[in-house]
Amino acid sequence: MCDICVMNAVKDRMLSRRDLFRGGLAAGVAGVAATVTGTAALADGHGSIRDMTHTLSENFPTFFGEPGYGAEALFNFAENGFNLLNLTINEHTGTHIDAPLHFSADGRSVDEIEIGNLIVPLCVVDIRAKAAADPDAQVTPDDLESWIRDNDDIPDRACVAMMSGWADKVNTAAYRGADDAGVLHFPGFHPEAVAFLLERTSASSIAVDTLSLDHGPSADFASHYAWLPEGRYGIENLAGLDQVPAAGATLIVGAPKHRGGTGGPARIFALI
Amino acid sequence: MCDICVMNAVKDRMLSRRDLFRGGLAAGVAGVAATVTGTAALADGHGSIRDMTHTLSENFPTFFGEPGYGAEALFNFAENGFNLLNLTINEHTGTHIDAPLHFSADGRSVDEIEIGNLIVPLCVVDIRAKAAADPDAQVTPDDLESWIRDNDDIPDRACVAMMSGWADKVNTAAYRGADDAGVLHFPGFHPEAVAFLLERTSASSIAVDTLSLDHGPSADFASHYAWLPEGRYGIENLAGLDQVPAAGATLIVGAPKHRGGTGGPARIFALI
Ligand SMILES: [Zn+2]
Ligand SMILES: [Zn+2]
Repeated sequence: MCDICVMNAVKDRMLSRRDLFRGGLAAGVAGVAATVTGTAALADGHGSIRDMTHTLSENFPTFFGEPGYGAEALFNFAENGFNLLNLTINEHTGTHIDAPLHFSADGRSVDEIEIGNLIVPLCVVDIRAKAAADPDAQVTPDDLESWIRDNDDIPDRACVAMMSGWADKVNTAAYRGADDAGVLHFPGFHPEAVAFLLERTSASSIAVDTLSLDHGPSADFASHYAWLPEGRYGIENLAGLDQVPAAGATLIVGAPKHRGGTGGPARIFALI
Repeated sequence: MCDICVMNAVKDRMLSRRDLFRGGLAAGVAGVAATVTGTAALADGHGSIRDMTHTLSENFPTFFGEPGYGAEALFNFAENGFNLLNLTINEHTGTHIDAPLHFSADGRSVDEIEIGNLIVPLCVVDIRAKAAADPDAQVTPDDLESWIRDNDDIPDRACVAMMSGWADKVNTAAYRGADDAGVLHFPGFHPEAVAFLLERTSASSIAVDTLSLDHGPSADFASHYAWLPEGRYGIENLAGLDQVPAAGATLIVGAPKHRGGTGGPARIFALI
Protein backbone atom coordinates (compact mmCIF):
# COMPACT_ATOMS: atom_id res chain seq x y z
CA MET A 1 0.00 0.00 0.00
CA CYS A 2 1.02 3.60 -0.48
CA ASP A 3 1.39 5.70 2.68
CA ILE A 4 -1.97 7.41 2.23
CA CYS A 5 -3.74 4.10 1.81
CA VAL A 6 -2.09 2.69 4.94
CA MET A 7 -3.16 5.71 6.93
CA ASN A 8 -6.70 5.53 5.62
CA ALA A 9 -6.95 1.83 6.31
CA VAL A 10 -5.83 2.31 9.90
CA LYS A 11 -8.21 5.22 10.39
CA ASP A 12 -11.15 3.27 8.93
CA ARG A 13 -10.47 0.40 11.24
CA MET A 14 -10.26 2.62 14.32
CA LEU A 15 -13.48 4.41 13.42
CA SER A 16 -15.26 1.14 12.84
CA ARG A 17 -14.08 -0.18 16.24
CA ARG A 18 -15.46 2.88 18.03
CA ASP A 19 -18.77 2.73 16.20
CA LEU A 20 -19.11 -0.93 17.03
CA PHE A 21 -18.38 -0.32 20.70
CA ARG A 22 -21.11 2.32 20.90
CA GLY A 23 -23.49 0.27 18.79
CA GLY A 24 -22.96 -2.79 20.95
CA LEU A 25 -23.88 -1.02 24.15
CA ALA A 26 -27.00 0.49 22.62
CA ALA A 27 -28.08 -2.78 21.05
CA GLY A 28 -27.68 -4.63 24.34
CA VAL A 29 -30.45 -2.49 25.76
CA ALA A 30 -32.78 -3.15 22.84
CA GLY A 31 -32.10 -6.87 23.02
CA VAL A 32 -33.58 -7.69 19.63
CA ALA A 33 -30.55 -7.15 17.46
CA ALA A 34 -26.99 -6.52 18.58
CA THR A 35 -23.68 -5.48 17.21
CA VAL A 36 -20.68 -7.75 17.34
CA THR A 37 -18.30 -6.01 19.73
CA GLY A 38 -14.67 -6.25 20.60
CA THR A 39 -13.62 -8.31 17.62
CA ALA A 40 -12.90 -5.86 14.89
CA ALA A 41 -11.75 -8.57 12.51
CA LEU A 42 -15.08 -10.38 12.62
CA ALA A 43 -17.00 -7.15 12.56
CA ASP A 44 -15.20 -5.96 9.44
CA GLY A 45 -17.35 -8.38 7.51
CA HIS A 46 -20.47 -8.68 9.65
CA GLY A 47 -21.43 -5.93 12.06
CA SER A 48 -24.72 -7.08 13.39
CA ILE A 49 -26.40 -10.18 14.83
CA ARG A 50 -29.98 -11.35 14.46
CA ASP A 51 -31.61 -13.97 16.63
CA MET A 52 -33.36 -16.52 14.41
CA THR A 53 -34.79 -18.53 17.31
CA HIS A 54 -38.32 -18.58 18.73
CA THR A 55 -38.60 -18.74 22.52
CA LEU A 56 -39.57 -22.28 23.56
CA SER A 57 -42.41 -22.81 26.04
CA GLU A 58 -45.19 -25.25 26.93
CA ASN A 59 -47.46 -23.47 24.45
CA PHE A 60 -45.19 -23.62 21.43
CA PRO A 61 -47.20 -25.14 18.55
CA THR A 62 -46.19 -28.63 17.43
CA PHE A 63 -46.80 -30.76 14.36
CA PHE A 64 -48.63 -33.44 16.37
CA GLY A 65 -50.60 -30.88 18.37
CA GLU A 66 -49.46 -32.07 21.81
CA PRO A 67 -47.03 -30.05 23.94
CA GLY A 68 -43.43 -30.88 22.98
CA TYR A 69 -41.76 -29.17 25.93
CA GLY A 70 -42.25 -29.29 29.69
CA ALA A 71 -40.28 -28.00 32.68
CA GLU A 72 -40.35 -29.01 36.33
CA ALA A 73 -38.52 -27.12 39.08
CA LEU A 74 -36.21 -29.53 40.92
CA PHE A 75 -34.83 -26.72 43.12
CA ASN A 76 -36.05 -23.21 43.80
CA PHE A 77 -34.28 -20.17 45.19
CA ALA A 78 -36.56 -19.59 48.19
CA GLU A 79 -36.14 -23.11 49.58
CA ASN A 80 -32.82 -24.27 48.13
CA GLY A 81 -30.85 -21.11 47.45
CA PHE A 82 -30.77 -21.75 43.70
CA ASN A 83 -33.10 -22.47 40.79
CA LEU A 84 -32.87 -25.51 38.51
CA LEU A 85 -35.34 -27.05 36.04
CA ASN A 86 -35.68 -30.55 34.69
CA LEU A 87 -36.82 -30.46 31.06
CA THR A 88 -38.82 -32.89 28.93
CA ILE A 89 -38.33 -32.19 25.23
CA ASN A 90 -39.66 -33.85 22.11
CA GLU A 91 -36.66 -33.33 19.81
CA HIS A 92 -38.80 -31.83 17.06
CA THR A 93 -40.13 -28.87 19.02
CA GLY A 94 -39.47 -25.15 18.70
CA THR A 95 -36.81 -23.79 16.38
CA HIS A 96 -35.04 -27.09 15.75
CA ILE A 97 -32.92 -29.33 13.55
CA ASP A 98 -33.98 -32.35 11.49
CA ALA A 99 -30.85 -34.50 11.30
CA PRO A 100 -30.46 -36.98 8.43
CA LEU A 101 -31.20 -39.77 10.97
CA HIS A 102 -34.73 -38.39 11.49
CA PHE A 103 -35.88 -39.86 8.16
CA SER A 104 -33.32 -42.60 7.49
CA ALA A 105 -32.28 -45.88 9.03
CA ASP A 106 -28.67 -44.92 9.64
CA GLY A 107 -28.03 -41.35 8.54
CA ARG A 108 -26.00 -38.87 10.53
CA SER A 109 -27.37 -38.07 13.95
CA VAL A 110 -27.53 -34.43 15.08
CA ASP A 111 -24.20 -34.68 16.95
CA GLU A 112 -22.56 -35.94 13.75
CA ILE A 113 -23.41 -32.99 11.48
CA GLU A 114 -20.07 -31.53 10.31
CA ILE A 115 -19.39 -28.20 12.00
CA GLY A 116 -18.45 -26.75 8.60
CA ASN A 117 -22.15 -27.17 7.72
CA LEU A 118 -23.29 -25.26 10.82
CA ILE A 119 -21.86 -21.83 9.89
CA VAL A 120 -22.99 -21.25 6.32
CA PRO A 121 -24.26 -18.68 3.82
CA LEU A 122 -27.99 -18.02 4.14
CA CYS A 123 -30.27 -17.74 1.08
CA VAL A 124 -33.75 -16.42 1.82
CA VAL A 125 -36.44 -17.41 -0.67
CA ASP A 126 -39.38 -15.06 -0.18
CA ILE A 127 -42.73 -16.70 -1.01
CA ARG A 128 -44.81 -14.45 1.27
CA ALA A 129 -47.01 -13.16 -1.53
CA LYS A 130 -48.19 -16.57 -2.72
CA ALA A 131 -48.37 -17.96 0.83
CA ALA A 132 -50.68 -15.09 1.82
CA ALA A 133 -53.01 -16.17 -0.98
CA ASP A 134 -52.65 -19.93 -0.33
CA PRO A 135 -51.53 -21.41 3.01
CA ASP A 136 -50.58 -24.65 1.21
CA ALA A 137 -48.07 -22.79 -1.01
CA GLN A 138 -44.73 -24.46 -1.72
CA VAL A 139 -41.22 -23.41 -2.72
CA THR A 140 -40.84 -24.57 -6.33
CA PRO A 141 -37.89 -24.81 -8.74
CA ASP A 142 -39.18 -21.54 -10.26
CA ASP A 143 -38.76 -19.79 -6.91
CA LEU A 144 -35.18 -21.05 -6.72
CA GLU A 145 -34.43 -20.00 -10.32
CA SER A 146 -35.81 -16.59 -9.51
CA TRP A 147 -33.61 -16.29 -6.38
CA ILE A 148 -30.56 -17.26 -8.46
CA ARG A 149 -31.42 -14.72 -11.16
CA ASP A 150 -31.67 -11.97 -8.55
CA ASN A 151 -28.72 -12.97 -6.37
CA ASP A 152 -26.18 -15.21 -8.14
CA ASP A 153 -25.55 -18.94 -7.64
CA ILE A 154 -26.49 -20.61 -4.38
CA PRO A 155 -23.21 -20.66 -2.44
CA ASP A 156 -21.36 -23.78 -1.37
CA ARG A 157 -22.90 -25.38 1.76
CA ALA A 158 -25.66 -22.75 1.90
CA CYS A 159 -28.79 -22.98 3.97
CA VAL A 160 -31.73 -22.30 1.65
CA ALA A 161 -34.58 -20.91 3.71
CA MET A 162 -38.24 -20.49 2.86
CA MET A 163 -39.70 -17.20 4.12
CA SER A 164 -43.47 -17.68 4.02
CA GLY A 165 -44.35 -15.08 6.64
CA TRP A 166 -45.54 -17.82 9.02
CA ALA A 167 -43.19 -16.82 11.86
CA ASP A 168 -45.54 -13.93 12.67
CA LYS A 169 -48.42 -16.39 13.22
CA VAL A 170 -46.58 -18.51 15.81
CA ASN A 171 -48.96 -17.63 18.64
CA THR A 172 -52.12 -18.14 16.58
CA ALA A 173 -54.09 -21.18 15.39
CA ALA A 174 -53.14 -20.26 11.82
CA TYR A 175 -49.58 -21.46 12.49
CA ARG A 176 -50.76 -25.10 12.33
CA GLY A 177 -53.78 -24.23 10.24
CA ALA A 178 -55.72 -27.38 11.20
CA ASP A 179 -59.02 -27.60 9.34
CA ASP A 180 -62.19 -29.37 10.51
CA ALA A 181 -60.88 -32.68 9.20
CA GLY A 182 -57.61 -32.22 11.12
CA VAL A 183 -55.56 -31.59 7.97
CA LEU A 184 -52.82 -28.98 8.53
CA HIS A 185 -52.28 -25.98 6.27
CA PHE A 186 -48.96 -24.15 6.12
CA PRO A 187 -46.26 -23.69 3.45
CA GLY A 188 -43.25 -25.94 2.81
CA PHE A 189 -40.77 -27.13 0.18
CA HIS A 190 -42.13 -28.89 -2.91
CA PRO A 191 -40.27 -32.18 -3.56
CA GLU A 192 -39.22 -30.83 -6.97
CA ALA A 193 -37.47 -27.90 -5.29
CA VAL A 194 -35.67 -30.40 -3.05
CA ALA A 195 -34.61 -32.39 -6.13
CA PHE A 196 -33.36 -29.17 -7.74
CA LEU A 197 -31.18 -28.37 -4.70
CA LEU A 198 -29.84 -31.94 -4.49
CA GLU A 199 -28.91 -32.05 -8.17
CA ARG A 200 -27.56 -28.57 -8.70
CA THR A 201 -26.17 -27.30 -5.37
CA SER A 202 -24.12 -28.38 -2.38
CA ALA A 203 -26.60 -26.75 0.01
CA SER A 204 -26.05 -28.17 3.49
CA SER A 205 -29.59 -27.51 4.66
CA ILE A 206 -33.07 -26.26 3.95
CA ALA A 207 -35.02 -24.21 6.47
CA VAL A 208 -38.68 -23.32 6.91
CA ASP A 209 -40.49 -20.77 9.07
CA THR A 210 -43.26 -23.35 9.56
CA LEU A 211 -43.75 -26.66 11.40
CA SER A 212 -42.43 -28.94 8.63
CA LEU A 213 -40.17 -29.08 5.58
CA ASP A 214 -43.20 -30.51 3.73
CA HIS A 215 -46.27 -28.29 3.49
CA GLY A 216 -49.13 -28.94 5.90
CA PRO A 217 -51.37 -31.21 3.78
CA SER A 218 -48.52 -33.52 2.72
CA ALA A 219 -49.49 -37.11 3.36
CA ASP A 220 -46.18 -38.69 2.42
CA PHE A 221 -43.41 -36.39 3.77
CA ALA A 222 -41.90 -36.55 0.30
CA SER A 223 -39.52 -33.62 0.86
CA HIS A 224 -38.28 -35.06 4.17
CA TYR A 225 -37.66 -38.43 2.46
CA ALA A 226 -35.91 -36.83 -0.52
CA TRP A 227 -33.64 -34.51 1.45
CA LEU A 228 -32.62 -36.03 4.79
CA PRO A 229 -31.40 -39.48 3.62
CA GLU A 230 -28.97 -37.63 1.32
CA GLY A 231 -27.01 -36.51 4.39
CA ARG A 232 -28.32 -32.97 4.34
CA TYR A 233 -30.25 -31.48 7.23
CA GLY A 234 -33.32 -29.35 7.89
CA ILE A 235 -34.35 -26.49 10.15
CA GLU A 236 -37.99 -26.02 11.18
CA ASN A 237 -39.74 -23.07 12.90
CA LEU A 238 -36.95 -20.67 11.98
CA ALA A 239 -37.62 -17.09 13.12
CA GLY A 240 -36.37 -13.69 12.02
CA LEU A 241 -36.09 -14.22 8.26
CA ASP A 242 -37.66 -10.80 7.64
CA GLN A 243 -34.70 -9.26 9.48
CA VAL A 244 -32.01 -10.51 7.07
CA PRO A 245 -31.19 -9.88 3.40
CA ALA A 246 -32.06 -12.36 0.64
CA ALA A 247 -28.33 -13.03 0.18
CA GLY A 248 -25.15 -12.23 2.07
CA ALA A 249 -25.95 -13.18 5.66
CA THR A 250 -24.15 -16.00 7.49
CA LEU A 251 -26.28 -18.45 9.44
CA ILE A 252 -24.85 -19.87 12.67
CA VAL A 253 -26.69 -23.04 13.60
CA GLY A 254 -26.18 -23.95 17.25
CA ALA A 255 -27.46 -27.50 16.78
CA PRO A 256 -27.72 -29.59 19.94
CA LYS A 257 -25.07 -32.29 20.36
CA HIS A 258 -26.69 -35.23 22.14
CA ARG A 259 -25.39 -38.61 20.98
CA GLY A 260 -27.64 -40.34 18.48
CA GLY A 261 -30.16 -37.49 18.35
CA THR A 262 -32.51 -37.18 15.38
CA GLY A 263 -32.58 -33.40 15.84
CA GLY A 264 -33.48 -31.02 18.60
CA PRO A 265 -33.97 -27.40 19.65
CA ALA A 266 -31.17 -25.19 18.33
CA ARG A 267 -30.03 -21.64 18.97
CA ILE A 268 -29.66 -19.98 15.60
CA PHE A 269 -28.13 -16.60 14.76
CA ALA A 270 -27.56 -14.67 11.56
CA LEU A 271 -24.61 -12.33 11.06
CA ILE A 272 -25.37 -9.57 8.59
CA MET B 1 -7.22 4.36 -2.18
CA CYS B 2 -4.69 4.69 -4.98
CA ASP B 3 -5.21 2.40 -8.00
CA ILE B 4 -2.46 -0.01 -6.96
CA CYS B 5 -3.95 -0.36 -3.49
CA VAL B 6 -7.42 -1.05 -4.89
CA MET B 7 -6.03 -3.74 -7.18
CA ASN B 8 -4.07 -5.35 -4.37
CA ALA B 9 -7.05 -5.32 -2.06
CA VAL B 10 -9.23 -7.04 -4.65
CA LYS B 11 -6.53 -9.60 -5.42
CA ASP B 12 -6.02 -10.39 -1.73
CA ARG B 13 -9.70 -10.96 -1.28
CA MET B 14 -9.96 -13.23 -4.31
CA LEU B 15 -6.97 -15.29 -3.21
CA SER B 16 -8.37 -15.62 0.26
CA ARG B 17 -11.75 -16.78 -1.14
CA ARG B 18 -10.08 -19.54 -3.13
CA ASP B 19 -7.97 -20.71 -0.21
CA LEU B 20 -11.00 -20.82 2.02
CA PHE B 21 -12.99 -22.79 -0.52
CA ARG B 22 -10.28 -25.44 -0.74
CA GLY B 23 -9.73 -25.42 3.01
CA GLY B 24 -13.43 -25.84 3.65
CA LEU B 25 -13.70 -28.95 1.56
CA ALA B 26 -10.67 -30.53 3.19
CA ALA B 27 -11.79 -29.63 6.70
CA GLY B 28 -15.25 -31.08 6.13
CA VAL B 29 -13.66 -34.48 5.70
CA ALA B 30 -11.69 -34.18 8.92
CA GLY B 31 -14.78 -33.11 10.81
CA VAL B 32 -12.93 -31.81 13.87
CA ALA B 33 -12.22 -28.30 12.75
CA ALA B 34 -13.61 -26.60 9.69
CA THR B 35 -13.10 -23.54 7.61
CA VAL B 36 -15.81 -20.96 7.18
CA THR B 37 -16.79 -21.25 3.53
CA GLY B 38 -18.64 -19.13 1.09
CA THR B 39 -18.64 -15.96 3.13
CA ALA B 40 -15.43 -14.22 2.36
CA ALA B 41 -16.33 -11.20 4.44
CA LEU B 42 -16.64 -13.23 7.63
CA ALA B 43 -13.63 -15.31 6.74
CA ASP B 44 -11.44 -12.26 6.23
CA GLY B 45 -11.26 -12.00 9.99
CA HIS B 46 -11.81 -15.60 11.11
CA GLY B 47 -11.01 -18.51 8.81
CA SER B 48 -11.60 -21.49 10.99
CA ILE B 49 -14.19 -22.92 13.39
CA ARG B 50 -13.64 -24.98 16.53
CA ASP B 51 -16.32 -26.96 18.30
CA MET B 52 -16.21 -26.16 22.01
CA THR B 53 -19.00 -28.60 22.93
CA HIS B 54 -18.77 -32.05 24.52
CA THR B 55 -21.14 -34.68 23.14
CA LEU B 56 -24.00 -35.23 25.59
CA SER B 57 -25.00 -38.75 26.59
CA GLU B 58 -26.41 -40.75 29.50
CA ASN B 59 -22.87 -41.19 30.84
CA PHE B 60 -21.85 -37.55 30.85
CA PRO B 61 -20.50 -36.76 34.35
CA THR B 62 -22.66 -34.47 36.51
CA PHE B 63 -22.10 -32.40 39.61
CA PHE B 64 -24.68 -34.38 41.61
CA GLY B 65 -23.42 -37.72 40.29
CA GLU B 66 -26.78 -38.86 38.84
CA PRO B 67 -27.43 -38.97 35.09
CA GLY B 68 -28.58 -35.57 33.84
CA TYR B 69 -29.73 -36.69 30.39
CA GLY B 70 -31.94 -39.48 29.12
CA ALA B 71 -33.51 -40.33 25.75
CA GLU B 72 -36.45 -42.53 24.84
CA ALA B 73 -37.39 -43.47 21.28
CA LEU B 74 -41.01 -42.43 20.61
CA PHE B 75 -40.79 -43.53 16.96
CA ASN B 76 -38.29 -45.71 15.10
CA PHE B 77 -37.52 -46.04 11.43
CA ALA B 78 -38.21 -49.79 11.13
CA GLU B 79 -41.73 -49.55 12.57
CA ASN B 80 -42.76 -45.96 11.91
CA GLY B 81 -40.68 -44.83 8.93
CA PHE B 82 -38.87 -42.16 10.96
CA ASN B 83 -36.85 -41.78 14.15
CA LEU B 84 -37.72 -39.39 17.01
CA LEU B 85 -36.50 -39.20 20.61
CA ASN B 86 -38.08 -37.72 23.70
CA LEU B 87 -35.39 -36.20 25.95
CA THR B 88 -35.18 -35.68 29.69
CA ILE B 89 -32.56 -33.08 30.55
CA ASN B 90 -31.42 -31.59 33.83
CA GLU B 91 -30.59 -28.06 32.64
CA HIS B 92 -27.12 -28.16 34.20
CA THR B 93 -25.76 -31.09 32.23
CA GLY B 94 -23.10 -31.29 29.55
CA THR B 95 -21.54 -28.18 28.03
CA HIS B 96 -24.11 -25.73 29.37
CA ILE B 97 -25.05 -22.22 30.50
CA ASP B 98 -25.60 -20.93 34.02
CA ALA B 99 -28.04 -18.02 33.58
CA PRO B 100 -28.18 -15.27 36.23
CA LEU B 101 -31.51 -16.81 37.41
CA HIS B 102 -29.70 -20.03 38.43
CA PHE B 103 -28.33 -18.33 41.57
CA SER B 104 -30.70 -15.40 42.08
CA ALA B 105 -34.37 -14.87 42.91
CA ASP B 106 -35.22 -12.90 39.80
CA GLY B 107 -32.17 -12.56 37.56
CA ARG B 108 -32.28 -12.99 33.79
CA SER B 109 -33.36 -16.42 32.60
CA VAL B 110 -31.41 -18.13 29.83
CA ASP B 111 -33.79 -16.90 27.12
CA GLU B 112 -33.25 -13.33 28.34
CA ILE B 113 -29.47 -13.16 27.95
CA GLU B 114 -28.78 -10.34 25.44
CA ILE B 115 -27.64 -11.75 22.11
CA GLY B 116 -24.80 -9.21 22.08
CA ASN B 117 -23.37 -11.20 25.02
CA LEU B 118 -23.52 -14.50 23.11
CA ILE B 119 -20.96 -13.66 20.39
CA VAL B 120 -17.98 -12.28 22.29
CA PRO B 121 -14.19 -12.18 22.48
CA LEU B 122 -12.68 -15.23 24.22
CA CYS B 123 -9.87 -14.93 26.79
CA VAL B 124 -8.26 -18.24 27.75
CA VAL B 125 -6.55 -18.32 31.15
CA ASP B 126 -4.23 -21.30 31.20
CA ILE B 127 -3.82 -22.79 34.71
CA ARG B 128 -2.96 -26.30 33.51
CA ALA B 129 0.41 -26.36 35.26
CA LYS B 130 -0.92 -25.63 38.74
CA ALA B 131 -4.05 -27.75 38.18
CA ALA B 132 -1.87 -30.74 37.28
CA ALA B 133 -0.16 -30.34 40.67
CA ASP B 134 -3.37 -29.61 42.61
CA PRO B 135 -6.86 -30.63 41.42
CA ASP B 136 -8.38 -28.00 43.74
CA ALA B 137 -6.49 -25.19 41.95
CA GLN B 138 -8.32 -21.92 41.31
CA VAL B 139 -8.08 -19.00 38.90
CA THR B 140 -6.80 -16.09 41.02
CA PRO B 141 -6.44 -12.34 40.40
CA ASP B 142 -2.74 -13.04 39.76
CA ASP B 143 -3.67 -15.35 36.87
CA LEU B 144 -5.85 -12.60 35.40
CA GLU B 145 -3.13 -9.94 35.84
CA SER B 146 -0.72 -12.29 34.11
CA TRP B 147 -3.14 -12.81 31.19
CA ILE B 148 -3.53 -9.02 30.85
CA ARG B 149 0.25 -8.48 30.90
CA ASP B 150 0.66 -11.03 28.11
CA ASN B 151 -2.34 -10.10 25.97
CA ASP B 152 -3.66 -6.56 26.66
CA ASP B 153 -6.86 -5.57 28.49
CA ILE B 154 -9.78 -7.97 28.75
CA PRO B 155 -12.08 -6.87 25.88
CA ASP B 156 -15.57 -5.48 26.32
CA ARG B 157 -18.16 -8.25 26.95
CA ALA B 158 -15.46 -10.96 26.87
CA CYS B 159 -15.90 -14.52 28.02
CA VAL B 160 -13.02 -15.28 30.42
CA ALA B 161 -12.38 -19.01 30.35
CA MET B 162 -10.37 -21.19 32.70
CA MET B 163 -8.32 -23.83 30.89
CA SER B 164 -7.38 -26.36 33.58
CA GLY B 165 -6.84 -29.33 31.28
CA TRP B 166 -9.91 -31.09 32.74
CA ALA B 167 -11.69 -31.47 29.38
CA ASP B 168 -9.36 -34.38 28.60
CA LYS B 169 -10.53 -36.23 31.74
CA VAL B 170 -14.24 -36.10 30.86
CA ASN B 171 -14.58 -39.87 30.48
CA THR B 172 -12.68 -40.68 33.68
CA ALA B 173 -13.50 -40.60 37.40
CA ALA B 174 -10.94 -37.80 37.78
CA TYR B 175 -13.38 -35.39 36.09
CA ARG B 176 -15.51 -35.26 39.26
CA GLY B 177 -12.61 -36.28 41.46
CA ALA B 178 -14.85 -37.57 44.28
CA ASP B 179 -12.79 -38.68 47.29
CA ASP B 180 -13.75 -41.30 49.89
CA ALA B 181 -15.76 -38.69 51.80
CA GLY B 182 -17.65 -37.72 48.65
CA VAL B 183 -15.92 -34.34 48.36
CA LEU B 184 -15.28 -33.35 44.73
CA HIS B 185 -11.92 -32.20 43.43
CA PHE B 186 -11.58 -30.16 40.26
CA PRO B 187 -10.45 -26.58 39.47
CA GLY B 188 -12.65 -23.47 39.38
CA PHE B 189 -12.69 -19.67 39.76
CA HIS B 190 -11.60 -18.22 43.12
CA PRO B 191 -14.16 -15.67 44.41
CA GLU B 192 -11.42 -13.02 44.41
CA ALA B 193 -10.93 -13.54 40.66
CA VAL B 194 -14.68 -13.12 40.20
CA ALA B 195 -14.55 -9.87 42.21
CA PHE B 196 -11.65 -8.68 40.04
CA LEU B 197 -13.66 -9.29 36.84
CA LEU B 198 -16.78 -7.61 38.25
CA GLU B 199 -14.89 -4.51 39.37
CA ARG B 200 -12.50 -4.03 36.49
CA THR B 201 -14.07 -5.50 33.35
CA SER B 202 -17.36 -5.71 31.47
CA ALA B 203 -16.86 -9.45 30.89
CA SER B 204 -20.21 -11.00 29.94
CA SER B 205 -19.32 -14.45 31.18
CA ILE B 206 -16.86 -16.80 32.81
CA ALA B 207 -16.33 -20.34 31.57
CA VAL B 208 -14.76 -23.46 33.04
CA ASP B 209 -13.68 -26.78 31.55
CA THR B 210 -14.94 -28.48 34.72
CA LEU B 211 -18.30 -29.25 36.37
CA SER B 212 -18.65 -25.96 38.26
CA LEU B 213 -17.62 -22.30 38.30
CA ASP B 214 -16.53 -22.93 41.92
CA HIS B 215 -13.81 -25.51 42.46
CA GLY B 216 -14.83 -28.99 43.58
CA PRO B 217 -14.42 -28.68 47.39
CA SER B 218 -16.35 -25.38 47.61
CA ALA B 219 -19.03 -25.65 50.29
CA ASP B 220 -20.64 -22.27 49.67
CA PHE B 221 -20.70 -21.72 45.88
CA ALA B 222 -19.16 -18.32 46.58
CA SER B 223 -18.18 -17.67 42.94
CA HIS B 224 -21.65 -18.59 41.66
CA TYR B 225 -23.22 -16.24 44.24
CA ALA B 226 -20.81 -13.41 43.45
CA TRP B 227 -21.09 -13.61 39.65
CA LEU B 228 -24.56 -14.70 38.54
CA PRO B 229 -26.70 -12.25 40.56
CA GLU B 230 -24.74 -9.43 38.87
CA GLY B 231 -26.47 -10.29 35.59
CA ARG B 232 -23.46 -12.04 34.09
CA TYR B 233 -23.55 -15.67 33.04
CA GLY B 234 -21.43 -18.81 33.25
CA ILE B 235 -20.43 -21.71 31.01
CA GLU B 236 -19.55 -25.11 32.50
CA ASN B 237 -17.95 -28.19 30.90
CA LEU B 238 -16.55 -26.15 28.01
CA ALA B 239 -14.46 -28.25 25.58
CA GLY B 240 -11.74 -27.42 23.08
CA LEU B 241 -9.89 -24.64 24.90
CA ASP B 242 -6.55 -26.18 23.92
CA GLN B 243 -7.54 -25.63 20.27
CA VAL B 244 -7.82 -21.84 20.49
CA PRO B 245 -5.37 -18.99 21.17
CA ALA B 246 -5.15 -17.22 24.55
CA ALA B 247 -6.55 -14.08 22.90
CA GLY B 248 -8.18 -13.20 19.59
CA ALA B 249 -10.81 -15.90 19.13
CA THR B 250 -14.54 -15.13 19.05
CA LEU B 251 -16.82 -17.36 21.11
CA ILE B 252 -20.29 -18.10 19.74
CA VAL B 253 -22.56 -19.28 22.53
CA GLY B 254 -25.62 -21.09 21.21
CA ALA B 255 -27.48 -20.84 24.52
CA PRO B 256 -30.85 -22.59 24.65
CA LYS B 257 -33.90 -20.32 24.59
CA HIS B 258 -36.60 -21.94 26.73
CA ARG B 259 -38.74 -19.46 28.65
CA GLY B 260 -37.69 -19.01 32.27
CA GLY B 261 -34.76 -21.43 32.01
CA THR B 262 -31.95 -21.27 34.56
CA GLY B 263 -29.49 -22.50 31.94
CA GLY B 264 -29.19 -25.53 29.72
CA PRO B 265 -27.08 -27.43 27.20
CA ALA B 266 -25.58 -25.08 24.61
CA ARG B 267 -23.79 -25.52 21.30
CA ILE B 268 -20.63 -23.45 21.47
CA PHE B 269 -18.18 -22.61 18.70
CA ALA B 270 -15.01 -20.55 18.49
CA LEU B 271 -13.97 -18.66 15.37
CA ILE B 272 -10.21 -18.26 15.13
ZN1 LIG C 1 -38.38 -31.79 12.86
ZN1 LIG D 1 -24.63 -25.11 35.75
